[in-house]
Formats: sequence, structure tokens, C-alpha cells
Amino acid sequence: MSYSKDFRIGPDAKVRLKDFDPGFAGKHEDKKAALERIEHLRQRMDDLQDELYAEHKRSLLICLQALDAGGKDGVVRHVFRSMNPEGCRVASFKEPSKEELDHDFLWRIEHQTPRRGEVVIFNRSHYEDVLIVRVHELVPKKVWSKRYEQINDFERRLASNGTQILKFFLHISKEEQLQRFKQRLDDPSRQWKISEADYTERECWSDYIRAYEDALRKCSTADAPWFVIPANHKWFRDLAVSEIIVETMEKLGISRPEPTVDIAEIRRKYHQTVKEEAVKKR
Amino acid sequence: MSYSKDFRIGPDAKVRLKDFDPGFAGKHEDKKAALERIEHLRQRMDDLQDELYAEHKRSLLICLQALDAGGKDGVVRHVFRSMNPEGCRVASFKEPSKEELDHDFLWRIEHQTPRRGEVVIFNRSHYEDVLIVRVHELVPKKVWSKRYEQINDFERRLASNGTQILKFFLHISKEEQLQRFKQRLDDPSRQWKISEADYTERECWSDYIRAYEDALRKCSTADAPWFVIPANHKWFRDLAVSEIIVETMEKLGISRPEPTVDIAEIRRKYHQTVKEEAVKKR
Repeated sequence: MSYSKDFRIGPDAKVRLKDFDPGFAGKHEDKKAALERIEHLRQRMDDLQDELYAEHKRSLLICLQALDAGGKDGVVRHVFRSMNPEGCRVASFKEPSKEELDHDFLWRIEHQTPRRGEVVIFNRSHYEDVLIVRVHELVPKKVWSKRYEQINDFERRLASNGTQILKFFLHISKEEQLQRFKQRLDDPSRQWKISEADYTERECWSDYIRAYEDALRKCSTADAPWFVIPANHKWFRDLAVSEIIVETMEKLGISRPEPTVDIAEIRRKYHQTVKEEAVKKR
Repeated sequence: MSYSKDFRIGPDAKVRLKDFDPGFAGKHEDKKAALERIEHLRQRMDDLQDELYAEHKRSLLICLQALDAGGKDGVVRHVFRSMNPEGCRVASFKEPSKEELDHDFLWRIEHQTPRRGEVVIFNRSHYEDVLIVRVHELVPKKVWSKRYEQINDFERRLASNGTQILKFFLHISKEEQLQRFKQRLDDPSRQWKISEADYTERECWSDYIRAYEDALRKCSTADAPWFVIPANHKWFRDLAVSEIIVETMEKLGISRPEPTVDIAEIRRKYHQTVKEEAVKKR
């Protein structure tokens, strides 16, 4: 079983999200049963990111999208902690600033694309410009409807310059969302996150689903595929995202660069230093 | 025992690094004996950063400096993985670009200072401009000698705008450095990091020590203290850095913000939603 294949949206495939089971949990009975696999993936992600960083040629861009309480923050917290903070960065896209709105929608995104060797996680992304923007008609249809193509062009350029792009839609059921709202209400340490908008946005659920279905269909390309991740079970969501990242990175065939120096020569220098300093010490 | 006190350089204190034992390891016999404490600190750092992020008022800036192989990358990898990547970022300062050199030395630093709620780790920092720059006379003495004051002014401004600054000098012995060079030579996966400069820089050891002693003395202020961390034992280095961060953050008295909404009102909305959706389902 390959989650990279199973959860991937084919190019131009008709997407009906109700055909995807958000409660799917694969072959593992529960988190406990999956712990060994989770630990293995954690280790692999650590190694692979280390190699990507050392290689300093390609980069990895992860886009996380979901409806409210879908688990974007959870994935950031639990999955990407496996990586060394030195080469791994999160870019969160919230409401655009006035300056950002004075530019086209990809301007602020461009600023945050990964450099060589880097892993960057987009917590929300340029897709908000065909999701919330479309649902609330923040720009006219003739503007947002052109963006799918603009996004594909943008992502194709990044890909052909060495950026591997993976886009995850964290798919929860409407019941699960309500359940999570309840959990926030009951946890004083998380109450500060609660907003009135949670409920008004929920009323637009089916509009969001339609907007997601279009984005998934129009923008899942060979260069930058979309994956629909069953996300009702948090542990499975994290596992599936990790599996796909590891599978993808393994296929990149990353290799550490050759030493830039003559190792035998440096070894001689080392032994000479040891000898000289021993003499000085006498 | 408080490492915040013991390893802290007092303002304007005369610093002689040879009086500091780089092999010090505190009360713990070895890493195994310290594991429980390490796990406790990991958990505390996670919680405290979460609160800092939620509070969204203050920020934390950590500067890491050391001689080659002193363990800056190790601290980044092992200590800061405890924190959520969402609110924790590493800025590495390597050789400045041509554009950066066209500005004053703090220009590129300014770009990387933390925003409210954020933890930023400087892997190398503006102190390179009074260390390597001084040792190799990259600018005249009359230029670098003014920088201590400029740095203090800069850090004072950050501090008084809500940034807590902690600066760590990871202190290893000259013998330990050579030992670590050897380990790199013997580990094929790390050979790519080896540079000729390792040995030429080592010849400037005492110049660097002198430059560090001056920086520590002139720039350890109440606003932005320097700590000399015994770093021959990697596990103790990580432990000591973590202890000081936790102790400092606990003193900040961080608190999660109050909810911006009326929680009772939201709770009513929740129950109403549950009821309405149950009706629709029938």
C-alpha cells in the first residue's frame, strides 16, 4: 500500500470529497499499533532532511490546507518536529497586510519559497486565494477564476527549478469539526483561539467543499500533486503525511556532496597538528 | 544551583576564559543520569514557547557563538527541536553577501529579529563582526572597536521593545576541538563539512579567545547577558542551555491571552448548532 498513490488526486480528476472517508485509518488498529512505524518515519525524515540540506541543490515545499480545526497546526507541531530546525521553516499565511494586498496574490508567497536545501511548510497558502476569497467573494469571479492557471504556472516554475512540492488537504468530517470546537471550549488553555468566525465559516461548509474540489481538480499536477488526507484520526493524519513525505524524498535520490577538500591531505594535517601540539606541551 | 547565575558574565566583568572549565558537567554523572532532567526541560520548553506564542507580546532571541566544532549546530538540532516549528525559527549568518556588505553590519541582523511571540535562534550572529572580522582584520580597528557600543545600543532597543535576549558562548577546549575534527574525518557522512579553514582558523585560537573575552566583557549587559557554557560534554552543553532558557522564560511571567469572545455565548452557539444539525439529519 502506497499512500502517495492512494491519496493522490490524478491530474484533472473529477473530485467528490464525499467519496473520501475522513475516518480511514489504514491497516493500523490505533495509534499504539502504529507507534513503531511512526518512530521509523520520524527517523527517516530526520535523515532525509539532513541529506537534502547537505546536498544543497533541491528543496521541499509542503502546503497544508484544511477547513477550520482540520489539523494544520497539529501537523506542523507533530510531523515537522522530526526535522532539524536549521533547515526547516514554517510560513503561515494569515489575512494579507495592506502592502501585500497592493501586490498580486503570489507576491507574498514568492517571498517565502524555500531556498536550496531547505524544507518550508506553508500553513495555509496561495490556495486561500481560491478558497476563502472565492467563498466570500473578496474579489470578483473573473479575477479568482484565472488564478488556478496562474498557480499552476507558478508551481511549475518552482518545480523545474528544483523545488519538490507536496500539497495536503487535511480532510475531516463536519461532525468531527464540531467535536473539535467542543474540545477547544472545554480546554481553558486553548480558549483564546476561539473565534466567532468558527461558526459563521461552518455555515459555508458546502461552499468550501466545492471550492476545495475545484482547487484539487484544477491544480493537482505532476509537478505539484494534491493529496486528500483522512484526518479525523489525528495520529493517522500525521502518519499518512509522514509516509508521503518520506516516500517522495526517497525517490529524489538525494546524496550528500563529495568533500570539497582532499581528505587524505586533511588527515595528514590532523596528524601533524597532533604531533606539533604534543611537542609544545612538553 | 542556578546555571543562569553561575554561567552568566557580570556586566563589565574581566573575563579570562582559561578560568572556565569546558569539561564541567554539574551534578549529573553522565547523560544517562541526566535523562530525567532533560526530558523535564524538553517539556517545559515546549509549554513555555506555546505560551509565548499565544501571548503574542514578547519574543525570545538566542545568540549562539563558538569556535569551530564548538557545537552550535548541535544545540540547534537537539535543544530547539523541543519547540513547535510554528513559532521557532533559525537564522544562520554566514559570510555576508555583497548587498549585505554595502550596508552597516547590523542591517542583515535587523531583518532576522523575532516578531512578537516568536523564538529566533541566531546560529552565529552580529558578534562575528567583532570576532572573525577582528581576528582577520577585515575592517580597521577604528571601525570594529566602535561596534561593541553599537551592539549594546541595538540590543538595548530590542530588549526595551519586548525581546528577551540570551547569548551563549559554547566553550570547548583546544584538545576537544581537535578530537572533533578527527571524528568528522572518520565519519564519511560528515566529510563534506570539512574545510581547510578548520586548521588555519585553529592557528588563530588565542586571537579568537582574546576577541571573545572582549566581546563577553563589553557586551554582557542586564538586557542581554552572555553565558559561558561548558561544552566539552555535548549532553551537558544542551542541558545547561535548556536550563537557562527555561529559567529565563519562567521569570517572564508569560500568560495566555484571555479569550476575545464571550465563552458562554459560544457555548450556547455550540449547543444550538448540535441541536439544529440533529434536526436536519432526521
